[in-house]
Amino acid sequence: MYSLAELADRLGLAFTGDAHKTIKGLATLEEAGPDDLAFLANPKYASQLAGSHAGAVILAPEQATDCPVACLLSDTPYLTFARASQLFNQSPPPVQGIHDSATVSPEAQLHPDVCVAANAVVEAGAVLGAGVIIGAGVYVGHGCRLGAGSRVYPNAVLYHDVHMGENCVIHAQAVLGADGFGYAQGPQGWEKICQLGGVRLGNGVEIGANTTVDRGTLGHTVIDDGAIIDNLVQIAHNCRIGKNTAIAGCTGLAGSTIIGANCTLAGGVGVVGHVEICDNVHLTGMTMVTRSITSPGSYSSGTPMGSTGEWKRNAVRFSQLDAIQRRLAALEKQVKHQT
Amino acid sequence: MYSLAELADRLGLAFTGDAHKTIKGLATLEEAGPDDLAFLANPKYASQLAGSHAGAVILAPEQATDCPVACLLSDTPYLTFARASQLFNQSPPPVQGIHDSATVSPEAQLHPDVCVAANAVVEAGAVLGAGVIIGAGVYVGHGCRLGAGSRVYPNAVLYHDVHMGENCVIHAQAVLGADGFGYAQGPQGWEKICQLGGVRLGNGVEIGANTTVDRGTLGHTVIDDGAIIDNLVQIAHNCRIGKNTAIAGCTGLAGSTIIGANCTLAGGVGVVGHVEICDNVHLTGMTMVTRSITSPGSYSSGTPMGSTGEWKRNAVRFSQLDAIQRRLAALEKQVKHQT
Amino acid sequence: MYSLAELADRLGLAFTGDAHKTIKGLATLEEAGPDDLAFLANPKYASQLAGSHAGAVILAPEQATDCPVACLLSDTPYLTFARASQLFNQSPPPVQGIHDSATVSPEAQLHPDVCVAANAVVEAGAVLGAGVIIGAGVYVGHGCRLGAGSRVYPNAVLYHDVHMGENCVIHAQAVLGADGFGYAQGPQGWEKICQLGGVRLGNGVEIGANTTVDRGTLGHTVIDDGAIIDNLVQIAHNCRIGKNTAIAGCTGLAGSTIIGANCTLAGGVGVVGHVEICDNVHLTGMTMVTRSITSPGSYSSGTPMGSTGEWKRNAVRFSQLDAIQRRLAALEKQVKHQT
Repeated sequence: MYSLAELADRLGLAFTGDAHKTIKGLATLEEAGPDDLAFLANPKYASQLAGSHAGAVILAPEQATDCPVACLLSDTPYLTFARASQLFNQSPPPVQGIHDSATVSPEAQLHPDVCVAANAVVEAGAVLGAGVIIGAGVYVGHGCRLGAGSRVYPNAVLYHDVHMGENCVIHAQAVLGADGFGYAQGPQGWEKICQLGGVRLGNGVEIGANTTVDRGTLGHTVIDDGAIIDNLVQIAHNCRIGKNTAIAGCTGLAGSTIIGANCTLAGGVGVVGHVEICDNVHLTGMTMVTRSITSPGSYSSGTPMGSTGEWKRNAVRFSQLDAIQRRLAALEKQVKHQT
Repeated sequence: MYSLAELADRLGLAFTGDAHKTIKGLATLEEAGPDDLAFLANPKYASQLAGSHAGAVILAPEQATDCPVACLLSDTPYLTFARASQLFNQSPPPVQGIHDSATVSPEAQLHPDVCVAANAVVEAGAVLGAGVIIGAGVYVGHGCRLGAGSRVYPNAVLYHDVHMGENCVIHAQAVLGADGFGYAQGPQGWEKICQLGGVRLGNGVEIGANTTVDRGTLGHTVIDDGAIIDNLVQIAHNCRIGKNTAIAGCTGLAGSTIIGANCTLAGGVGVVGHVEICDNVHLTGMTMVTRSITSPGSYSSGTPMGSTGEWKRNAVRFSQLDAIQRRLAALEKQVKHQT
Repeated sequence: MYSLAELADRLGLAFTGDAHKTIKGLATLEEAGPDDLAFLANPKYASQLAGSHAGAVILAPEQATDCPVACLLSDTPYLTFARASQLFNQSPPPVQGIHDSATVSPEAQLHPDVCVAANAVVEAGAVLGAGVIIGAGVYVGHGCRLGAGSRVYPNAVLYHDVHMGENCVIHAQAVLGADGFGYAQGPQGWEKICQLGGVRLGNGVEIGANTTVDRGTLGHTVIDDGAIIDNLVQIAHNCRIGKNTAIAGCTGLAGSTIIGANCTLAGGVGVVGHVEICDNVHLTGMTMVTRSITSPGSYSSGTPMGSTGEWKRNAVRFSQLDAIQRRLAALEKQVKHQT
């Protein structure tokens, strides 16, 4: 609960309206009530402003005149909303110290200011920095290093030799450092290639729930500072993900894929192994990437959805596309001859 | 083990054959032996009836004359099979009470009739209804509410403020309530939007293994009564899934997607964010949904599989499709002129 | 750390160079230093040989003359590399015996030579063979059987009645034996079909992190000897995977899919239910399989990636493909007439 003036102060913004007005929560422009702070970042919602019942609205200065309630004036309303959301964080604080049921190796090095929750396991050689939070049931393997302020949510698993910088967030059930999928064909079948590398995350990396980041075969799998990875993403051995790159859910990267900085991969994208994607590339959802991308920009693949009946008719023709093209070329020739 | 008469009685059906016949298990029509109950629901297996060695067969009354063995007569044989399967359930019953190694907050409210297995953690403010079963290693966060008869399988994780109705089933490693993938672009990179909403499941919802249901940003992520979700499905922040909708494995829904009631999404479907799918829509496997769907019916996307060589030739032409169309239009014009 | 002669001896190979040379690790041809063993398996890296600073290189005898440093001569350099990788395995050995915090049923049968780590749970009727390693937080359900030498990494979950042969590897968060996604339509919505079968893995099967293998409905879900499954793969109820078949990450198989032996499924493949894929089939990444495959070979689907603008123009035409074909056919007819 904040007064409007307090909020403006914490967010470093000018405001209009009653400085003493109480704000208890955050809500959308449409749903906000008189105790809520709302925001207007996307012009498509501008028409909701006039009818809003919000206590106050974060918006750009030029929209303030259209706002019937108090305003927090920001040149970057969405960013301000993100920062305001931190002020209303209601997630329960972790319990300080090491829970009785945790199993912490005497050969691990823990900063005095860490939280290790129930049933967590921290193996020998692990190093946990100041403020590190290890959730219930988490497994931290031998020689892992977690920088100050990093947090691992319940039941996530870090195999041995996984390092992360400061302020990383690893969500529940994520697995860092499982073996890369590497085998050689032997006379009796597949023979496993021992995965000798580790995993290296920079600072401020976030890894979603149930996401997997395999260890490297030789050398490490690397995710750079500020990269954010959603749920159920597969990052195979020896991938390298650049700074501030964002990867949405259900995406899979095959081994040794290199992704540049400031890229965004929408959901369900697949990238074959051993290709390189340069900085500032955007891939739309479910794109299939089978070659390197050397120019920044937006890329896509796939076909548009139709009713199943209509789609079937078109899909059949896809299988005849080369023939259709050849028929067309023949016809072009013939018509040209007739002229 | 049941007599035929007992089975008929429990399933509320008429039967033909020896009332005392012993039935020990369920099997397919093809594999059933003389102690097994089989079923005929799909007409394509009708030809197997004559040669079946089953002890008895669940089938429609009109097929009874073709059946060489005892019959359980049902107008809905597949539904009867589902109900019969419950009678042969061999899964081990959970141990009553709270295991010594569980960590249950004194501020949690547990109905006397709950099971909390080894190493489970139940945080403050959690409320577990009658008959709730919490598997080994499960984490139940602060303020979670589980209605009577709900079950959570081993190592699943419920972040704080996840509510579910009665008789829900959450499979192993599922994660409910992890942070939605929400960030704003700041001057130094992504800034996290604190995810302030929770997760709300209705009654009778089933969530598959390794599936993720993120918490809402503002307001909740909601899954309605009777919806069933398979394994490895991603349901992003603020999605709403309608009553009795079924979502098969490896499907991903981006943020704020709304799916109506009685829909079926086959495996590997991807839906972009902020779209709405009306009731009674069927999406075939791997469909890419990039717009709202406002009419019930079946929808698809993708291309048919071919041999890789043949596919390559056609795929190249896909990249020339617009040009092919323009060539065709030019030719049409030219031919028209010549006439 | 090995001498060159020792390495050659352990790998059963002839060598050139100083027998006493010390080798401390494995590295790529490009990155190897004078203490490292490198390998040359892919001809595309042959040009790196001349400039390599490796201590020794595994390569085919015919390439030895081009190699400026010591050689280990192998007719199968990649396979030799795989075997060499085992010699440099640095993963920490598991602690012998049963950890105090593990919960092992007195009705489970454990070979004296097993490791059961912290907080693992082994239920009644489970049988663990010689050398079995159960990681921290793993759940082994009632009646599971793990053959000698099998290893389960932290927090993986085996529901009841999951059997595996010898030397299987199950990675973290994998779930074996969760309920298949089986329901019948009832008057009030979906009614669950109790999943009565189990899961059966042969010898030497590897299952990746966060992968799910559902139990069978009637009869088992079966994965044959030597099959290798990557991360985040969904294998539905009653699938059968043949010997030495490899399935890469993010692939999903619907129920009752049968895959033959020695197949390779690249990442993100989807296979509908009740189809059969014969031996020696290769599916390229993200292929959508909607029918059975009866001839060995390579198969594909999907469209090539383009810039989003270009792709949109072509994708629109996909929706007109059937019309384009009909226009073409009409034009062909018309031109023929004119001739």
